[in-house]
Amino acid sequence: MERVLKQLQDAKAASLELALLPSIKKEQILLAMADALEKNSEMILQANAQDLQTARSEGKEKAFLDRLALDEKRIGAMADAIRQIARLQDPVGEVIGGSTAKSGIRILKKRVPFGVVGMIYEARPNVTADAIAICIKTGNAAVLKGGREALRSNIAIVQAMQEAAICTGLPQGAIAFIANIDRQVTTYLMTQRQYIDLLIPRGGAGLIKAVVENSHIPVIETGVGNCHIYVDASADLQMAADIVINAKVSRPSVCNAAENLLIHQDIAPAFLPIIIARLKKAGVQMRGCSICQRYDPDILPAVEEDYFTEFLDYIIAMKIVKNLEEAVNHINTYGTKHSEAIVTSSYEAAEYFQQRVDAAAVYVNASTRFTDGGEFGFGAEIGISTQKLHARGPMGLAEMTTYKYLISGDGQIR
Amino acid sequence: MERVLKQLQDAKAASLELALLPSIKKEQILLAMADALEKNSEMILQANAQDLQTARSEGKEKAFLDRLALDEKRIGAMADAIRQIARLQDPVGEVIGGSTAKSGIRILKKRVPFGVVGMIYEARPNVTADAIAICIKTGNAAVLKGGREALRSNIAIVQAMQEAAICTGLPQGAIAFIANIDRQVTTYLMTQRQYIDLLIPRGGAGLIKAVVENSHIPVIETGVGNCHIYVDASADLQMAADIVINAKVSRPSVCNAAENLLIHQDIAPAFLPIIIARLKKAGVQMRGCSICQRYDPDILPAVEEDYFTEFLDYIIAMKIVKNLEEAVNHINTYGTKHSEAIVTSSYEAAEYFQQRVDAAAVYVNASTRFTDGGEFGFGAEIGISTQKLHARGPMGLAEMTTYKYLISGDGQIR
Repeated sequence: MERVLKQLQDAKAASLELALLPSIKKEQILLAMADALEKNSEMILQANAQDLQTARSEGKEKAFLDRLALDEKRIGAMADAIRQIARLQDPVGEVIGGSTAKSGIRILKKRVPFGVVGMIYEARPNVTADAIAICIKTGNAAVLKGGREALRSNIAIVQAMQEAAICTGLPQGAIAFIANIDRQVTTYLMTQRQYIDLLIPRGGAGLIKAVVENSHIPVIETGVGNCHIYVDASADLQMAADIVINAKVSRPSVCNAAENLLIHQDIAPAFLPIIIARLKKAGVQMRGCSICQRYDPDILPAVEEDYFTEFLDYIIAMKIVKNLEEAVNHINTYGTKHSEAIVTSSYEAAEYFQQRVDAAAVYVNASTRFTDGGEFGFGAEIGISTQKLHARGPMGLAEMTTYKYLISGDGQIR
Repeated sequence: MERVLKQLQDAKAASLELALLPSIKKEQILLAMADALEKNSEMILQANAQDLQTARSEGKEKAFLDRLALDEKRIGAMADAIRQIARLQDPVGEVIGGSTAKSGIRILKKRVPFGVVGMIYEARPNVTADAIAICIKTGNAAVLKGGREALRSNIAIVQAMQEAAICTGLPQGAIAFIANIDRQVTTYLMTQRQYIDLLIPRGGAGLIKAVVENSHIPVIETGVGNCHIYVDASADLQMAADIVINAKVSRPSVCNAAENLLIHQDIAPAFLPIIIARLKKAGVQMRGCSICQRYDPDILPAVEEDYFTEFLDYIIAMKIVKNLEEAVNHINTYGTKHSEAIVTSSYEAAEYFQQRVDAAAVYVNASTRFTDGGEFGFGAEIGISTQKLHARGPMGLAEMTTYKYLISGDGQIR
C-alpha cells in the first residue's frame, strides 16, 4: 500500500494547487488531453487489444467485450466528450450566497472543489477519460481505481492524458490512477478519509453496495434504477404504449430504462392487448401477475423478486393495480428512487403521483429515459444519484463542488 | 430488534404524510409541543432528577451533571427554541430551479424533506426537543437514539411533545424515540437504509467516528473543531489579542472555540508578552514550541499530539511559524476543516489565507466563535458540518431537505 499512499498524498498536495487554477488554464489542459487521446490512439488500441484478448480467453460474454472494446471512433468520441466538458461554465468560484451579519461580519458563500475525488468503477475504459476530465474541470484531483479487465487500456489512456496535461500546467500528482488491482486496495481507499474527500462508485449494484456499506468517506451512490411506468385509468392508450415501449426498449441496459409496468384495473382490458402485442414485437419477455396472465399465455408468472429486479434486459415485470394509491405504494416499496412515470389525463392523479412518489425524477406523460445530464441541459453526464444527500438525480458540474464561507471582519468578537 | 423495526416502519409510513403537511399545520404542531413542554415540566423534572441521581451514584463529573441537569428555566428555554423554529420560513416546497428542456419536457426542481432522519446523540436532553422540532419543521420523521444517562429525561420530553403533537395533527409514528439503550441498537440503526434516509450523529469525537465508519446510511458529520488563530506579521496586536482571548475563553467547551495559536516569527517578540499575560490572567494553560517557551517558564512543551487535539478546555497549543505559508500548511495538516482565522493588515495575506485554507469557515480579523447558525442568520442551530458533502459549516433548515425533479410532458419519448 505504500505506493498507493504516496499517490494519495501527492493527489492531496496537487488538489490545493488545482483548486486555484484559473478556468482558462483548466480549459487548455482539457483540450490538450483530448488531442493527446487522439494522437496516442495507436498505443491505446494496442493496450485495449491485449485487454480484449485476455477477456476473450477468460470466456467473457459478448456484451462485456463490447463495453470493453475501443476503436478509433470510440476514442474520437472520448476526445469530443472532453472538449465538450472543457467548454462548459466552470462552477468553481461562483458566489452562491452571502450577507452581512448583525455583528457586522461579511459572509460570502463560495463554490470550491471538494479536493480529492475518488472513483471506483468497472469495465468501460471511457469512464477513465470522463472521470479525469470532470474532476479537472471542477478543480478536483482524481483518484481512479478501474476494473481489472480494462487495466492496460486505462493505463494507456491515463498516460496519454497525463503527459499532455502536465506539459500544459496540470499539477503533478493530480491524476492518481491505481494500477494495483488487488481488492484490498479498494478496501484501503475507502478508509483514507484524510486524503479523499468524496467517493463515487460507478458500476453494478454489487460494487455500489460494497462501497456504500464499507466506505468511511462520504459517498455519492449512483445508478441503480428499478423504474416504473404506471398507466392510469384515464391514460391516452397510444401515448401510454409509446412511453412504455420507449422506456423499456430504446436502451434496456441503462439505469433510466423501465423495468416495471403498473396498469390501473379499469384500463387493463383496453390497454393490455395493445401493449402485449407491442412488447412481443419488440422481443420483450413479460412476467406478470395472475390477472395479466389471463390476457396472454406467453406471460410468465411474476414472483415478488421480479418486482425488485433491475433487469437491464428485454424483460418487463407487469402488475394490475386497483387504484392510483396502490400504484404509488408499490413504487415506494419496490422502486430505487431513480425515475418513475405516470401516464394520465387526470390533473388530480398527476399531482397525487408527483407529490407522493419518492424518487429523484417523477414524470407525468413522458418517458423515464429523460433522466440524463444531457437531456436536463447540464452538458456533462457524471452519474445519476439515487441517494438524497448532496445530489439527487442527474449530476452536473456544480454537484462536483462543495462550498466554503469566507468571512471578513474588523476585529469582531462574540 | 422487532420493536425498533416496527418503529422504523411506522416512521417511514408517517414520513410520507408528514412531507405533505401544510406549513401552517406544522407551525401549530410545534407551538403545541412548546406549550406541552412547559405544562409537563414537573413530570420532566422528576424524570431528570432520577437521571441525575443515577449519574451522581456512578460518580460522573460536574460538567457532565451540568449538561444533564434540567430546571424550569432550561425547560422554558427549550420551549422558546421550539417557538423560534416554528416561526422560521418553511423550506419545503421551495422551487430551486427548473427549465424547459430541448425535448419540450418541463422540469421543476423542488425542495422536499429527506423522509426519515436519524439522530444519535449523547447526554444533553435539550437535543431531544431540538431535534424533534427541526425534523417536524422540515417535514421529516425523526428517529432518536439518545444517551443512556438521559434516558428517563428524554422519554418524559418525548412523551409530552408527542401527545400534544398528535392531538394537533402530527401523523402517528413520526417521532420514534428508541428507548432500548443497547449499543447493538445503534449498530442496527446504521444499517437500516430502507427506513432511514439520513443519519446525524451529535456528540463527542468517538461517537461521530463510530457512526462515520460504520453507517450504511448517508451521514452528516458534525462538530469536531480543532480551530486555529494565526497572527500574521502585519496584525494589529490589540485586535489579535482580543480575538485570541475571545476565541479561546468565551466558551471553551464549544466546537468553534480556538485550540491553537500560530504566530508569525517577526511579530512574536512584540505579541507573545501581551498574549501570554492575557492567557495567564484568563487561566489558560499554554503548551508551546521551543521558541514560545523562551518567553515564559510556565509554557509547557507542546508535543505533536497537542496540535491535533480539540481540548474543549482552558488549554491552548502555540507555535511560532516562519511565514504565512507554514501557517496555512500547519492548519491544513492539523485542522478539522471547521473554522480558521487570520489576523492581518495585509490584503495579500488575507486573500492567500482564505483561498488556501481548507475549512468550512475561513475568517479574516474576526473570532472563530461566529461559526454558528444564529450568528449566520439561519435562525436554528442544527449542527455544524465538518464534511464537504451536502452541507458545510452551520446548517440551516434548508440543509435538512433534499430535492426532487418534477417533470411534465405531453407524451415525449427519447
